[in-house]
Formats: sequence, C-alpha cells, structure tokens
Amino acid sequence: MDFYFDFISPYAYLAWMNPRTGPRALAARYGVPLVVHPILFAGLLEKHGQLGPAEIPPKRAFLVKDVMRHAALEGIPVAFPDPHPFNPLALLRLATISVDVIDALFTLAWASGKDIAENLPSVVGAEMMARTREPEVKAALKRETDAAIARGVFGVPTFIVGDELIWGSDRAADVERVLAGADPLDQAAAAAVIARPMGVTR
Amino acid sequence: MDFYFDFISPYAYLAWMNPRTGPRALAARYGVPLVVHPILFAGLLEKHGQLGPAEIPPKRAFLVKDVMRHAALEGIPVAFPDPHPFNPLALLRLATISVDVIDALFTLAWASGKDIAENLPSVVGAEMMARTREPEVKAALKRETDAAIARGVFGVPTFIVGDELIWGSDRAADVERVLAGADPLDQAAAAAVIARPMGVTR
Repeated sequence: MDFYFDFISPYAYLAWMNPRTGPRALAARYGVPLVVHPILFAGLLEKHGQLGPAEIPPKRAFLVKDVMRHAALEGIPVAFPDPHPFNPLALLRLATISVDVIDALFTLAWASGKDIAENLPSVVGAEMMARTREPEVKAALKRETDAAIARGVFGVPTFIVGDELIWGSDRAADVERVLAGADPLDQAAAAAVIARPMGVTR
Repeated sequence: MDFYFDFISPYAYLAWMNPRTGPRALAARYGVPLVVHPILFAGLLEKHGQLGPAEIPPKRAFLVKDVMRHAALEGIPVAFPDPHPFNPLALLRLATISVDVIDALFTLAWASGKDIAENLPSVVGAEMMARTREPEVKAALKRETDAAIARGVFGVPTFIVGDELIWGSDRAADVERVLAGADPLDQAAAAAVIARPMGVTR
C-alpha cells in the first residue's frame, strides 16, 4: 500500500494518526508493506491551476471546523499551527531524508499549536536542518511529487492499493474494504463511465 | 435547515436521496423546516477561479468510482448521465420554478444513464421548458447563487443549520449532530483559529 501526504494537510495528519484506520494500522492488519510518499501538495495544485482549500476564505473556515470536529470524534489531539497555513517544504524534505521523523513532524504541525518554522530546528536538530538545503534532497522531493502526479494523485492524503487510488482521510473505510477484498464497486461499470468523452459543464 | 445543491453534483444527488440522512429525513426527524436552494455550482467555482472536480481528469476518475462505491454502500441507484459532465442550467431553473420537480430531475440526472438535454422535455413538459427561458426565472437562479456566495457557501451540497455551515454528502452525520445539539466542535477554539491572519502556503 502506498500513502501520499503533505504536512500542510490536516486531513493527512488525521489519516496518519488514526490508530484504527491509519495507513500503519491498515498495513499491519492486512499484512501488506507500507510505502510512504511525502509530496508537495502545492505541486499538485499548480499542475491543475487550482487553489488549496485553505486559500479560499469560506472553505478555510469550514476546514478548520471540520478538522477540529473530526479530531474530537476520533479522539486525536489537534492544535492548529500559528501561522496557518504554513510553508511545508522543509518538513517534506526532512521526511524524504528519513521516514522516522514523520510522527514528530506531524505532531509539531498539528498538535503543538506552535509556529512551525521557529520550532522545527529544535525538533530535528541542526544537522538534519542543514540537509534540507542539499540539492539531492530537494530533487528527491520533486521526483516523488512528479511521480505522484504521473500516477494520478491529485490530492492528499491518497492511498493506493494495487491499482486502486483512494483519496481522503474520510475514505479510510473504503481503503480497508479494498484490502479485505470487499470493495462493492462495479469496476467494469466505473471504467465504462470514465472512458466516455467528457461533456461540457459550462 | 437550508440545503444548497446543483444537479451537476452526484454528491448532491446522494445527499438528497438518502432515506436516513438526506435533508428531508433530517428535517422531518428534528422537526425543522427545510428550505432548498438550487444554485449554480459553476458560479461558486468562477467566484474563486477554480475548476470543478469533474474538470480535472484524474479527479473525475476517482469521483466516478467514489460515487458508484458510496451509492452501492447506501443502496441508492446510480447511473451516470451520458454525456457527463452536463450543463445543469435548465434543471436548476426548473427547480427554481417548483421544488416539486427536484426528485424527478435528480432521478433523470443520476439514475437514468440517459442524455439529459434530450430527455428533459419529456420529464417536465413543454410548458415548464418554455418557462426556463423567462428572464425572471434566470434572475431567480442568479439571486439564489449570489445569496449563497454571500452566505459563505463554496461547494455543493451544503447544509446550514442556524449559523453552522456543513459541506458534503459525507458530512450528514455531522449535520445530524448539530440538529441533535450534540456537535463535539469547540466553537470558541475554532473561531480563534479562523480569526488569525492567514499564513503563506507557497
């Protein structure tokens, strides 16, 4: 199973931290390897000329409430960083260097309520921070992001199981159905609709 | 309770048709009046310069699967119209004239698998079709859309209960929690985050 994420996304945080339906729990429960892919969400948005949800004021207001509401329902601690949104580049490059820092970085971003840029060095240390400026680290993140776009990833978090791409922290139950061989989707019917030429919306 | 929708959205269809958590079921269960608002989703997108989900090819592919999967899980019939996406203007204007046609129009759009433009006249009749070209009908839809934008509606379907705006067919359980007085959201904490000046994402 592949898991694509950006620290900028509180939904990626909610997915990652979920003890029952998070990618680590699902991979362990179904005995499949988990491959994590830090990617730059802004790169996906730029590919399609879109704004992120936190860049549209009324959508940002709903997003804040929706994330806090679902964190409360799932029993996951959440404290929005200040300022929010924030630039996630350094965090993503750190995750490209080592998957072991993902937990600490998600916790800094979404459970501390702190200024991320100010507090990041004390979480990972000066040596790791210096590595985020290395050209090969920058290139690795760009490669991951380009590969994700090539594979059809358009948002975060995204799970891919076999050929099935599933987007959204609120679709973890669907990911589990796919892993369990219990997906109710009629693949042939869906493929027929997807293959039709696109109509006009406006 | 207010319900904002556009026939273009299969998620609005799934919300409308849901026998347990649809707007009609929720309004009846909690004894609140239901006010339905047909609005032009493309108008919301234009306001923020955004594309719709069906206008981004990989997102459209996921959307088709996601809608068919959740229709199967909820036991709601679904058959994508051909062509898809389609121009929903005539359907929206018809719903502005009379709420009684909403069921028939949603069924034509999302459960018939037919070409909507071709089959619409036989569903509503020539007299109703003629009315969709009246200036005051066109103006009514534009008024509804502008009023929705002014109220902070950014997507469809949207429910508003009191001052609480909730977006998405997959958030009907949250709408029910609000109606039941059991919303777990810490409103003061959310308001404090929303009021902060926006940071920079990229």
